[in-house]
Amino acid sequence: MEYLKNPGKGVITDVKGRLRCYKNDWLHAFHSGPGIIAPMAFMFFASAIPVIAFGEQLSKATDGALTPAETLMSTALCGVIHAIFGGQPLLILGVAEPTIIMYSYLYSFIQTRIGKELFLAWAGWVCTWTALFLLLIATFNLCAIIHRFTRLAGELFGMLIAVLFIQEAIKGIIEEFNVPEDEEGSTEEKYHFQWLYINGLLAVIFATGVLLTTLKSRNARSWVYGTGWFRSFIAEYGVPVAVIIWTALSFAIPSKIPSGIPRRLDASFPWKSNSHWDTIVGMGRVPGGYIFAAIIPALMVAGLYFFDHSIAARMAQQKDFNLKKPSAFHYDVFLLGIMTFICGILGLPPSNGVLPQSPMHTRSLAILKRQMVRRKMVQRAKDGIEEKVSHSEIYGRMHDVLIEMEASSPPKTVKQDLTNLRESVVKHDDKGNKKEEFDPEKCVDLHLPVLVNEQRLSNLGQSILVGVAACAMPVIRLIPTSVLWGYFAYMAIDSLPGNQFWERLLFLFVTKQRRYKIIEELHASYIESVPFKYIFMLTVFQIMYLMVCFGITWIPIAGILFPFPFFLLIFIRERLLPKVIPTQHLQDLDSPEYEEVYGHSYMPNDQHRKKGESEGDENEVEMSPEEILDLMTTHRGEFKHRSLSYHHPSRKHHQPQGLQASSSATQ
Amino acid sequence: MEYLKNPGKGVITDVKGRLRCYKNDWLHAFHSGPGIIAPMAFMFFASAIPVIAFGEQLSKATDGALTPAETLMSTALCGVIHAIFGGQPLLILGVAEPTIIMYSYLYSFIQTRIGKELFLAWAGWVCTWTALFLLLIATFNLCAIIHRFTRLAGELFGMLIAVLFIQEAIKGIIEEFNVPEDEEGSTEEKYHFQWLYINGLLAVIFATGVLLTTLKSRNARSWVYGTGWFRSFIAEYGVPVAVIIWTALSFAIPSKIPSGIPRRLDASFPWKSNSHWDTIVGMGRVPGGYIFAAIIPALMVAGLYFFDHSIAARMAQQKDFNLKKPSAFHYDVFLLGIMTFICGILGLPPSNGVLPQSPMHTRSLAILKRQMVRRKMVQRAKDGIEEKVSHSEIYGRMHDVLIEMEASSPPKTVKQDLTNLRESVVKHDDKGNKKEEFDPEKCVDLHLPVLVNEQRLSNLGQSILVGVAACAMPVIRLIPTSVLWGYFAYMAIDSLPGNQFWERLLFLFVTKQRRYKIIEELHASYIESVPFKYIFMLTVFQIMYLMVCFGITWIPIAGILFPFPFFLLIFIRERLLPKVIPTQHLQDLDSPEYEEVYGHSYMPNDQHRKKGESEGDENEVEMSPEEILDLMTTHRGEFKHRSLSYHHPSRKHHQPQGLQASSSATQ
Repeated sequence: MEYLKNPGKGVITDVKGRLRCYKNDWLHAFHSGPGIIAPMAFMFFASAIPVIAFGEQLSKATDGALTPAETLMSTALCGVIHAIFGGQPLLILGVAEPTIIMYSYLYSFIQTRIGKELFLAWAGWVCTWTALFLLLIATFNLCAIIHRFTRLAGELFGMLIAVLFIQEAIKGIIEEFNVPEDEEGSTEEKYHFQWLYINGLLAVIFATGVLLTTLKSRNARSWVYGTGWFRSFIAEYGVPVAVIIWTALSFAIPSKIPSGIPRRLDASFPWKSNSHWDTIVGMGRVPGGYIFAAIIPALMVAGLYFFDHSIAARMAQQKDFNLKKPSAFHYDVFLLGIMTFICGILGLPPSNGVLPQSPMHTRSLAILKRQMVRRKMVQRAKDGIEEKVSHSEIYGRMHDVLIEMEASSPPKTVKQDLTNLRESVVKHDDKGNKKEEFDPEKCVDLHLPVLVNEQRLSNLGQSILVGVAACAMPVIRLIPTSVLWGYFAYMAIDSLPGNQFWERLLFLFVTKQRRYKIIEELHASYIESVPFKYIFMLTVFQIMYLMVCFGITWIPIAGILFPFPFFLLIFIRERLLPKVIPTQHLQDLDSPEYEEVYGHSYMPNDQHRKKGESEGDENEVEMSPEEILDLMTTHRGEFKHRSLSYHHPSRKHHQPQGLQASSSATQ
Repeated sequence: MEYLKNPGKGVITDVKGRLRCYKNDWLHAFHSGPGIIAPMAFMFFASAIPVIAFGEQLSKATDGALTPAETLMSTALCGVIHAIFGGQPLLILGVAEPTIIMYSYLYSFIQTRIGKELFLAWAGWVCTWTALFLLLIATFNLCAIIHRFTRLAGELFGMLIAVLFIQEAIKGIIEEFNVPEDEEGSTEEKYHFQWLYINGLLAVIFATGVLLTTLKSRNARSWVYGTGWFRSFIAEYGVPVAVIIWTALSFAIPSKIPSGIPRRLDASFPWKSNSHWDTIVGMGRVPGGYIFAAIIPALMVAGLYFFDHSIAARMAQQKDFNLKKPSAFHYDVFLLGIMTFICGILGLPPSNGVLPQSPMHTRSLAILKRQMVRRKMVQRAKDGIEEKVSHSEIYGRMHDVLIEMEASSPPKTVKQDLTNLRESVVKHDDKGNKKEEFDPEKCVDLHLPVLVNEQRLSNLGQSILVGVAACAMPVIRLIPTSVLWGYFAYMAIDSLPGNQFWERLLFLFVTKQRRYKIIEELHASYIESVPFKYIFMLTVFQIMYLMVCFGITWIPIAGILFPFPFFLLIFIRERLLPKVIPTQHLQDLDSPEYEEVYGHSYMPNDQHRKKGESEGDENEVEMSPEEILDLMTTHRGEFKHRSLSYHHPSRKHHQPQGLQASSSATQ
């Protein structure tokens, strides 16, 4: 264990690296002007709505001991701390589903033992232990372990969360037909059968309505109809708009219906009572045995947090985003430990780095114009290849485009980019035999990528807004609970595309004669490179494993161990699977990069060039940079690498290099 | 008026033509064996479900004087008569929406004047006059007038029907929240506010459920997932399956809810009372003034019936179906007159030829294998063109494919087809300069089209099944009314794709920079040939005209004249529009043929050839003939003509030749 030799080395390196650009993190933010407000507002809604939904789930599971007010407060508090003191300010923090599940188990465990009044205090001990473990992980440089959680584990975990979301949606709707568990007043009018039934039917309608409207809005950016501004607005604010619309509709019911129908969120300002300030006092009253029993859930939570936080951080700073400032994996886990401790003693559920919000944040800060330049340059280069001019000439043409369009950028960056690009393009001339392999898209991607506005203000701003929302509980309490059940279903469905486990699962339902339909469209490269037999085997294994994991969540006390099978997956992936599936195929199926191949019928660049020819350049097609990014990333925010064809020579460069391939991105 | 010179000539020619193949109509049917059962069952559901829905609409509009039992009975009766005595046995008859609207006006007119007990009698008079007008139209060979109703009028009418369907769906759902108009017993438990509200909410859920499931099933054939058998089954029986599933779900409500919720269809066997047998007696009691007043609605109904019946017949025997037996437009209108009279004196709403069922019927009888042959031949021919072999050689290759795959067909037809094909292919060799224009797809389409099993049994069988359904009212009464409201919404939405008015209307919402998205996909040819200005003008004119037509349906008595604006359209189309829009553009926008152009990104034959190369021939892709037909026709059953590109030389052949182009198809 080489890591252990230099305790604290990783954290110190990270801190040094980030300190060097700390001042710039703020300066850059204030220089970017009012443009920073849009990503701030966007991220606020993307953070706050799931946190409210999780809060409601937690409130149901803990009989109201923790409510949306607490989850919002934790998200705001940790967000502010991280924005100011965090290593990677692009990382978004929030209370996430695994936390909710863990807290539900903690509550049901402790409630029957030392009573519900000591729940927050005991959870405080769990947080304290968790904090300790996280600090140890960071200090002893164990962050590299994250690379041993491959796509297999990540996607399986993602699917489990999706299944739990769907379960939550269904459970939530069914419960709308019954008197809530913690209420006794079944003599009240609103708890008579017919009113409960009306409440339930309204819940079905609202939840379905929210699900359909949010799903519809998801791809608004690629709609054919409507102006670009309108489509962007729907794509970015579809979820909050849907929540607002359906909440408004819920007030359109006739006045003859007793108040309390439809059921709405139940949460008040968190510091209404002293319970939160008393947590630290209560911690002293927890019996010693239970303090040590808290180690077991703490181990699970620490594993989960480390896993979630690091993956979210990695996704927020993918290589393709071309970030200029250093990463801080070790230090961020260290800080996460401190924040977990603070939340624990305040009686709040802790926050950690969240997906898909973190890459979404980076994406919303990407500087847009460069994408447009990229498209134009690739096109110019391809024209050049067709005319069979030399690569120096090609470079010359690409250079002109850049100079022409980048007139407003700081000249220094442009110059550096050009130098890199030049070397990359011209070197193909030297080795005459490699000429065929020159792929302008790849060259430009490598040397002229997107630029991200790396700063701390957008994260700070959105966290403060979440804090404001936590204080605006009277407004949030207007939301019907059923709207949140629909939103849970949406989160589940929204997380599926781009999850290769899910895509392979669907692929099993395609008959052999029908597979050409998949190959014709954009498709993941493993479909062509791995024999169906192995795809089938791995997918069936994952389905069974998923069922086991899901089964564990149903076992009352053992449920607390639900993250354990995912830690076990490291062993299964490294030792057992290679014995059944040939290594090369396993690497293709579990590749760290998401690689896509164009179908026979889809050649986008080609088609745009034709278009250009017939209409002239001034009639440039309208395709916003966000739309291009939509095409290039999964819903989870993962970049997809595209090749023209599976057999295309240029594809070799994209060939996944096994498990270690993306390690460098996270060092 | 040349038509008037030879009264009865058209009818006699038709009768003679059909008599010659009458025996064969039956022989052919019985020879085709059990294979005829599938289209029979398919058409039964396609006929019966809308007729039940219209019956419920009529029942609401006439306070139960006419119910689904009567509409089913009329459909069955006219269907049997037409199957045995009709000219074109592929034409499907049924009670259609315009009939329902007309009968609703008749009822509301007569109810306040001579009382509702004489409603059927007066409607009998309307039918008698209508019958007379139809007989006159047929006798004086006026059927050619139908060609003056262009696409413009047909699609406007289709849109009006779609709007009325949506209105019916919304009205139906809203009324589920209220006590039905004809019921007084509002003291009954099921009419208390909370139960009515539950009934209404259930209606929203059932109607939405039916709409979503039927819409989803519509394109099942092109789904990627599932076996071919499963996809075909869902595509063909999606609507009945959805009705059955949602009806079954409606019985899953808790038993605490009073019976009568959800509201279900209200209809009993039509001859329960004597009212129908008494219609003819009642006709004698109608005051003379009203007998003559019946002429005005009769004129409208006759116009409508003539229009609907002829269009349905024309769609059922489009040129592309390659029917071998003669049409009988004059005689069928004649017979329609007789059937209208019979229905009138029996107190039933009359039936006429219906869309989209009629072309659906022809399609379901198309012999399938030939489509597969076609694809293979086109592919072989294209390979030949690429290898630049002579056209005789190409013909030789196509010939081999046919012989090989058609081994089981009667040799005579194959031989004739081959002769035609040979002439068509080889003639391109003579004119060397025209070589470029040789388009194998077009040649094969012209000389080797689908073959339809033209017989009378499937129509007779489905009509008898509808009659059986009319006697099975206890089963039909299980259907919740809300399921039908969902079905109305489905019918509306289902009728829109392929309606060029609708497609142009959507096109108005595409921003200029975004139009490339339309051009990239399959698109109607007018998008490239007509300047946007004229597309805009015509579409806005149609929208305003539609609003006027819709407005008329709301005027209490004048509503009876609602078909009038459509007759007026002939004049507007022929005299006024050409003054505003240049003739050529107007012809493109109002072309009798539906012409589509492949987008830049979509070259299906090309792509399949590539596929074939890489995988070898034994791995033939799975694409059922029905699926090919799905791609080739609109939902209304109209054939689309496809060109590779708007600028492609071969397109000239498909160029619409103005208003008269498709006249020959209907002679």
